[in-house]
Amino acid sequence: MVDRDRASPRHNLIESLVHRQHLVELQLKLRSLHPADIAYILEALPLDDRLLVWRQIEDGRGGEVLLEVSDAVRDSLIETLERPALVRVLGQLDADDLAELAEAVPEEILTEVLQSLNARDRDWLQATMAYPEDAVGHLMYQDVLTVRENQRVEQVLLLLRGRDDLPPNTDSLFVVDGRHLFKGVLPLRALLLNDPQKQVAELMLADPVIFHCNEDAADAARAFERYDLVSAPVVNERGKLVGRLTVDEVIDYIREESEEDALNMAGLRGDEDLFAPIWDSARNRWLWLSINLCTAFIASRAIGLFEDAITQIVALATLMPIVAGIGGNSGNQTTALVVRGLALGEITPENTWHLVFKEIGVGLLNGVAWGSTVGLFAYLLYWNLPLGLVMAAAMLLNLLLAALMGVAIPLILHRLGRDPALGSSVLLTFITDGMGFFIFLGLATVFLL
Amino acid sequence: MVDRDRASPRHNLIESLVHRQHLVELQLKLRSLHPADIAYILEALPLDDRLLVWRQIEDGRGGEVLLEVSDAVRDSLIETLERPALVRVLGQLDADDLAELAEAVPEEILTEVLQSLNARDRDWLQATMAYPEDAVGHLMYQDVLTVRENQRVEQVLLLLRGRDDLPPNTDSLFVVDGRHLFKGVLPLRALLLNDPQKQVAELMLADPVIFHCNEDAADAARAFERYDLVSAPVVNERGKLVGRLTVDEVIDYIREESEEDALNMAGLRGDEDLFAPIWDSARNRWLWLSINLCTAFIASRAIGLFEDAITQIVALATLMPIVAGIGGNSGNQTTALVVRGLALGEITPENTWHLVFKEIGVGLLNGVAWGSTVGLFAYLLYWNLPLGLVMAAAMLLNLLLAALMGVAIPLILHRLGRDPALGSSVLLTFITDGMGFFIFLGLATVFLL
Repeated sequence: MVDRDRASPRHNLIESLVHRQHLVELQLKLRSLHPADIAYILEALPLDDRLLVWRQIEDGRGGEVLLEVSDAVRDSLIETLERPALVRVLGQLDADDLAELAEAVPEEILTEVLQSLNARDRDWLQATMAYPEDAVGHLMYQDVLTVRENQRVEQVLLLLRGRDDLPPNTDSLFVVDGRHLFKGVLPLRALLLNDPQKQVAELMLADPVIFHCNEDAADAARAFERYDLVSAPVVNERGKLVGRLTVDEVIDYIREESEEDALNMAGLRGDEDLFAPIWDSARNRWLWLSINLCTAFIASRAIGLFEDAITQIVALATLMPIVAGIGGNSGNQTTALVVRGLALGEITPENTWHLVFKEIGVGLLNGVAWGSTVGLFAYLLYWNLPLGLVMAAAMLLNLLLAALMGVAIPLILHRLGRDPALGSSVLLTFITDGMGFFIFLGLATVFLL
Repeated sequence: MVDRDRASPRHNLIESLVHRQHLVELQLKLRSLHPADIAYILEALPLDDRLLVWRQIEDGRGGEVLLEVSDAVRDSLIETLERPALVRVLGQLDADDLAELAEAVPEEILTEVLQSLNARDRDWLQATMAYPEDAVGHLMYQDVLTVRENQRVEQVLLLLRGRDDLPPNTDSLFVVDGRHLFKGVLPLRALLLNDPQKQVAELMLADPVIFHCNEDAADAARAFERYDLVSAPVVNERGKLVGRLTVDEVIDYIREESEEDALNMAGLRGDEDLFAPIWDSARNRWLWLSINLCTAFIASRAIGLFEDAITQIVALATLMPIVAGIGGNSGNQTTALVVRGLALGEITPENTWHLVFKEIGVGLLNGVAWGSTVGLFAYLLYWNLPLGLVMAAAMLLNLLLAALMGVAIPLILHRLGRDPALGSSVLLTFITDGMGFFIFLGLATVFLL
C-alpha cells in the first residue's frame, strides 16, 4: 500500500543515484514512478542532473512526463531533444495531450507530428489550438461518451460493458440527438441507482451546467468550484456537443493561474524555472526591473525639485522614505483586495462607489492614526514641532491618495481590458513614492522654510 | 438550458430588487438560485444590502448558504443572527457540514447544536474538529460507502440500487475487512465495465493513493493534482478507514490558500470582506502597517547617520531611494521564486547551494547591468564621475545582498517552521532599504567627501 511515499516521493534517492552515476538502477527506479512524480523530480533537479535523468526515462514514457512538468521546465527538456527524438516522443501522445503541448513545440515539428495523426484527430487538434489559451475550447478534451434519449439504462450498461475503460474523470455520459445537439447529462450514478428498464430521457439532467468553447476558462473554473463539478459538456454556438471539460484540467488551471499571479506580482514574467541558466533568469527579470528603474528615477526627480529645502533641513531626507514607504504599503493592501474582488467578479458598477468611500474612510482613519504617530516620532527625534506637524499632514495626505489610487488603478486596468494583477502594484508604488516625496517636501518648503 | 447565466449570475437583478425593496420578488428569485450563487451575490453586496438579502433567504436554506460564503462574509452573517435563529440554521446541516462551520460559531451555540445530533455524528464532529485546520482529518467527509472483498459485482450493484443517492463526488467505493481495516478501492467504472459475476477482490485497486488523518492538507492537495483524483480514502494510524477526501474540498482548499497567500503578501491578515465596516478593515491592516512603520523608521536611521554627507552633497538624497528601491524589487523576485519552490517541495538540502549560487550569479549580472545604467544616469544628471561610480558600486552591492537575502530569508523562515510567504517580503525590503541607504551613503562618505 502506497501513501505518503508516493505523494511526496523520495527524490533524495534519485539524487544520490544521479550523483553516483548508477544509471541502471536509476532507470529501474524511474520505471516504477508515476509520470507526475518523475516530473516533480525533474523540476527539483539542477539543470545538468535534470537532463541526465531525462535521458534515462524509458522510451514511450517521455511524452507523459512532458505533459506533467511546468512550462519552463518543459522548454528546458524539449530544447535538448534532437528533431527525430522529439517527433518520436510527441508521437506517443493522443490528440488531446498533443494540444496541451502544442505551444511548446516548434512549428515545423508540430506539422510533422500532425501528419502521423488520422484526419479526425488532426482536425480536432487544429480546432482546439485555434482557441485562445484561456478559453474553454483550448482546455477541453475530445473523448466524450454519448447516449440517446430513447435508450434504456440496460442498453447503456451493455454498451459500457463492451468497452475496456472509460475516459479519465468520467462521472457522466452526455445525451445528444441525431445531429449531435446536446440534450442533457446522464450521471453514472443514475445508471447504478436506477431500474435498468428506465429510459435515459427519464433519468438525465436536462438543465446541467454547460460551457461554450469561447467562454473564459477562469469563469469555467469558478463554476467547477461553485457547483462541485467533475466533468461538464462543452457546446458550440449552435448547441452541438464538441467536447468535455474535466476537473483535473480545472485544478491545473487554477494552480497555474494563482502561481503565475504570485510571480507576476513580484515582477516575474509567467513561469520561471527554479534552476534556469543564469542568463535566462536574468533576462526574465529585466522587463520589470527596467520599468521599476524608470519609475524610481521619475519619483526621485520629485526629490530633485526640493534639493534646496533638503540642504536647509537635512532631516527631510531622513524622514521622506517613511512617508513614501507607508503610503505604498497601505495602498498595496487596498489594491490586493480590489484585485481579488475583480477576479471573483464581486465588484460591479453599483457597488464601486461604496468601495471607494469605504477605502477612503479606511485611509482617513489610518492617516490620522499613523500620521500622528510618525509626526510624534519626528518631533521627538528632532525636537521640532512644525516638522512633526508637516510629517503628520504629509502622511495623512499620502495615505488618502494611496487609498484612492489603490482602488482606481486596478479598476482602470480592468476597464481597459488588462489584467489588474499585473502592474497595479508597480503603478501604485510609483504614485505613492513620487507623490509622497512631493507632498512632504512641498509642505516642508511652504511651512518650514 | 442554463449556462453562463448560472455560472456568473445576474446579481444586477438582485441589486435592483434590493434597491427597489421588492422583497417578495427578491425571495422568489433567491429561491431559484443555487446556494453557491446566493453566496456569491452576498459577497458582492455592501453590508446593509447584504443583510437585507440574507434575511429574505427562505427558512431551511440559510445553512447551505453559510457553507458557501467566504470566512469573512460568514462572520458578518452569523453576527446578525440571534441565538435561536442561529441554532435553527445550524440544525439544518449534517455533521460534515457543521464541522466546516464549527470555527465560525460561538462555543456555547455549538454545544447546543451538538446536543441535537445523534451520538455517532456528535463523536464524528468532535473527532474531526480535534484535527488542526490544515490536516486531512479536518477536511475529510464521514459518508463512505464500503464493500467487502468477497462480494460479487452483482451484489454490490443490488446494494447500490437500494439507495436513493450516492454521496457527492463518489467515483469509487472503499473495500474494508470485518474490522474496518482498509483493503482497497473499487472504482465505479469497474462496476460498470465488468462482468457482474466477478468478485470485488479481482477488480479492486489494492495500491491506491491513501491519506492519513494527520497528513498535511497541502500535501494531499498536491497528490490530488498529480494523480487526478476525485475521491480518496483516509485511514488512521492502525489502517482503519475513517473517512473520505474529495476533490471539491481540495479545490476549495487550493483556492483559499492561494487567495490567502496573495493577501498576506500584500500585508493583509487572512481573509478580508470587501465591504467590511471601516473600523474592522482598518484594524485588519494595522498589524502589518505597524511592522512596516518600525522597519521604515529603522531603515531611515541609516540615513540619519549620514546627514552630514547629505548636507554636503544633496544629490545623495535624490539618488538614494533608487538604490534601495531596485534592490527591493530584485530581491522580491528571488523571494517569490524561492517561496514557490518551497511550497512545491522542490528545494532540498542537496540543491540549496546550487540555487544560492545561481541567484548570486543573476544578482551579479543584474548588478553590473543595472549598476552601470544608473551610474551613467547619475553621472549625466550631475556631471560628477565619482558620484556615478559610487552609485554603480552601491547598486551592484545592494543587488548582490538582495539576491543572497532573497534566498536566505524564506529558507530560514521555512527552517524555523514558519510560512515563508508571510513576512519574507517585509523582512527583505527592510534589509534592502536599510542596507541600500547605508551602502550608498557610506561609500559616498568614504570616496566623495
